Amino acid sequence: MSSELVIQGSLFTPVSPTEFTFLRQALVCIDSTGTIARIVRATDTDYSDVQQTAQRLDHLWQLPHNQYILPGFIDLHVHAPQWPQAGLALDRPLDQWLNTYTFPLEAKFADTTYATKVYHHLVHELLRNGTTTAMYFGTLHLDANLALARQCAQQGQRGFIGQLAMDNPDQTPATYRQTSSQEALQTTERFIVQLQCLAKTTGAALTPVITPRFVPSCTVETLRGLGGLAHRNDLPIQSHCSESNWEEQYAELTYHQRDAAVLDQFQLLTPRSVMAHGTQLNADDLTLFADRQTTVAHCPISNCYFGNAVFPVQQALNHQVNVGLGSDLSGGFTPSLYRNLQQAVMSSQQLQDGVDAQVAPAQRGRGTGRISATTAFYLATKGGAKGLNLQTGQLRAGFAADLQIVTDRLGTLMPNDAHSVFERLMYQTTPAEIATVFVRGRQVIG
Amino acid sequence: MSSELVIQGSLFTPVSPTEFTFLRQALVCIDSTGTIARIVRATDTDYSDVQQTAQRLDHLWQLPHNQYILPGFIDLHVHAPQWPQAGLALDRPLDQWLNTYTFPLEAKFADTTYATKVYHHLVHELLRNGTTTAMYFGTLHLDANLALARQCAQQGQRGFIGQLAMDNPDQTPATYRQTSSQEALQTTERFIVQLQCLAKTTGAALTPVITPRFVPSCTVETLRGLGGLAHRNDLPIQSHCSESNWEEQYAELTYHQRDAAVLDQFQLLTPRSVMAHGTQLNADDLTLFADRQTTVAHCPISNCYFGNAVFPVQQALNHQVNVGLGSDLSGGFTPSLYRNLQQAVMSSQQLQDGVDAQVAPAQRGRGTGRISATTAFYLATKGGAKGLNLQTGQLRAGFAADLQIVTDRLGTLMPNDAHSVFERLMYQTTPAEIATVFVRGRQVIG
Ligand SMILES: [Zn+2]
Ligand SMILES: [Zn+2]
Repeated sequence: MSSELVIQGSLFTPVSPTEFTFLRQALVCIDSTGTIARIVRATDTDYSDVQQTAQRLDHLWQLPHNQYILPGFIDLHVHAPQWPQAGLALDRPLDQWLNTYTFPLEAKFADTTYATKVYHHLVHELLRNGTTTAMYFGTLHLDANLALARQCAQQGQRGFIGQLAMDNPDQTPATYRQTSSQEALQTTERFIVQLQCLAKTTGAALTPVITPRFVPSCTVETLRGLGGLAHRNDLPIQSHCSESNWEEQYAELTYHQRDAAVLDQFQLLTPRSVMAHGTQLNADDLTLFADRQTTVAHCPISNCYFGNAVFPVQQALNHQVNVGLGSDLSGGFTPSLYRNLQQAVMSSQQLQDGVDAQVAPAQRGRGTGRISATTAFYLATKGGAKGLNLQTGQLRAGFAADLQIVTDRLGTLMPNDAHSVFERLMYQTTPAEIATVFVRGRQVIG
Repeated sequence: MSSELVIQGSLFTPVSPTEFTFLRQALVCIDSTGTIARIVRATDTDYSDVQQTAQRLDHLWQLPHNQYILPGFIDLHVHAPQWPQAGLALDRPLDQWLNTYTFPLEAKFADTTYATKVYHHLVHELLRNGTTTAMYFGTLHLDANLALARQCAQQGQRGFIGQLAMDNPDQTPATYRQTSSQEALQTTERFIVQLQCLAKTTGAALTPVITPRFVPSCTVETLRGLGGLAHRNDLPIQSHCSESNWEEQYAELTYHQRDAAVLDQFQLLTPRSVMAHGTQLNADDLTLFADRQTTVAHCPISNCYFGNAVFPVQQALNHQVNVGLGSDLSGGFTPSLYRNLQQAVMSSQQLQDGVDAQVAPAQRGRGTGRISATTAFYLATKGGAKGLNLQTGQLRAGFAADLQIVTDRLGTLMPNDAHSVFERLMYQTTPAEIATVFVRGRQVIG
């Protein structure tokens, strides 16, 4: 198979939560379908042949020595309509934040022109931060959700897009809810058909997602109906689970069950489900998640504000629960998964050590649970891809050529062993250092 | 008084931990000494006169509507020689991090050429992040510390620079310590003289700082001698206090006193002292800090890794303790005080809520202590200036023209009331958004 593009450069790719692979000056061969056809190592006998052939065909792109190839990042949890309030009102309690700021903002997406403007900006912002795949919550508005899909298609981002369902009159404002379970389910069905049609006509990587906002905002009929819809159509599901004390307590007061058990009862915990946050999941809940092969979208920045606890990543991994990373715009203020993977490490250390010096050191924290940047990198890539059942998130033959080329701006001054470079990339990358981004072999940034 | 430069633009300046002032389209008049001569409000009767005069003299600089003027930030805690390992090895325990990575790196600054290269880079990096004043720990090497001072002078940053003292053979490596208390004190005295001479000849804003690394690394004679030296020369002091469980316990085991009390015993807690971290300070320690008018350099990112707790900012402010902000490079990985002020807000919320969901919500956190972005902004500006006894950190007549001009890149899409703009600037600013930086009226970035 001949390659359309051969990128020559050093690369990092995840192996497991505790291991990454570093290849110095590899040749990443990308074919005409946007797939990585092969990765040629510097030690492979035909390295020079491949390189020279690519050069002759003018397919070779040699990176400067201070640039590195990483898999594109996968953001498992983005509230697309909340982008205009990123960073705002984060010092308010969750209910105030939702009712005073968030719901009125989301209601504005009835205006599809406004939606297009916001979504155009958002998709670009995520791409320039290295996010090649995103799983989006939309709004109640089918047209706005399709506008988001069109932006993904036009700008070349892999998008998982959810038509929002919320119809519980007790927990949602009259100005922003579906008026019946029937409306919620029918709109979702129409959205699925139209999005799949759009994907077909554009050839874009677009997938509809069953999206009950969370247990409190939905009626029983809607939860049950959406579970059935996901099952019949074999579709991914996204929602929130055990995000905060309030959310967990709502399930226990209303259903006399754990929040996770409620979702499970309605067939909403599946191998294609991605549940955001999970800060309040207990050991039984984690076992349930593992049994159902459901993924947690860990959103560490958002959790500082609204989570009332740190999601125990290491404990979840020990329970064989799959974990990916989410920005949770705008509960989290930044579109950067770099920022979120840094926070994942910091928060894990805080969970281990505790935070309140008025408590004796031995009682203050859990004493375990710290994760490394390697684990956080795994979450942002391979963990996310696993949650979406995608052949991406790794630089590997047969996988999609979703990748970012990142400049190690500080390398001239600092240690240049692979581990140091890796940590520096994880900790020091801002959009300014992300030189180029590819999705499915197509250059979308740079 | 005629102005050398008049900047026309909207500005934010701190008032208190709970209040900032916003002025729309003010005229910031900077005189030839680099001082803010006057700030003319849009409602002042002579606004047009001042504006037209400046325009006629070609002194007027009108900012675009999406740019805002903020005071330059004040970083109270930077280990200058650790810049080459920013972001590296943060998953190691503190003692390993110090002995395996940090001390060997600092020892390399015996090479003044290397020091100059690193410091040139570091000072630029801090300036492009909006930090107009920095308080630096140097190394044991007098020449390297002077090289740092020269970089501050050349690049125009206001620098407080410390000749490091560490001579306790039990707690420091043989390859990186002063061999006697006499050597520690004499080197400090020589450094003071030479730095003051450099300040005089260059006209740069350079101040020597008495710098015992921390209690464990110094002998009693050195702690006592440095306290006396600071007192006789009326100099600022910097060190660490109650940074971690280990540091606090060292004082209690060795001196049978709190870490803060040990420092106080040697006259090291003064109105000119800045003590980094303070995560383990108890209420008595905070009262002592308040009595001594000593400032805490809160380093929230570093504390996630090494602090074993969150410094209780709000509690300290309630105790009338002055608090500023520090990056703690490289215990913290980023030169950005924006990043640190964001983390200060997040960590304060975590202290309030707790982090471990295995603990019942009512017992999990302190239940109070959350700070807002307004408080964090105050720490990065007015709090820092107060700690250094400087007329800067505010946009105000008579204060130094240390300021940053920041682009609100997302303003076209988002709410534009003053509070929203303020929060967006606090949460979304990276070096790419910092268009221009001034120190003492001199443009140093942009
Ligand atoms: Zn969410
Ligand atoms: Zn320090």
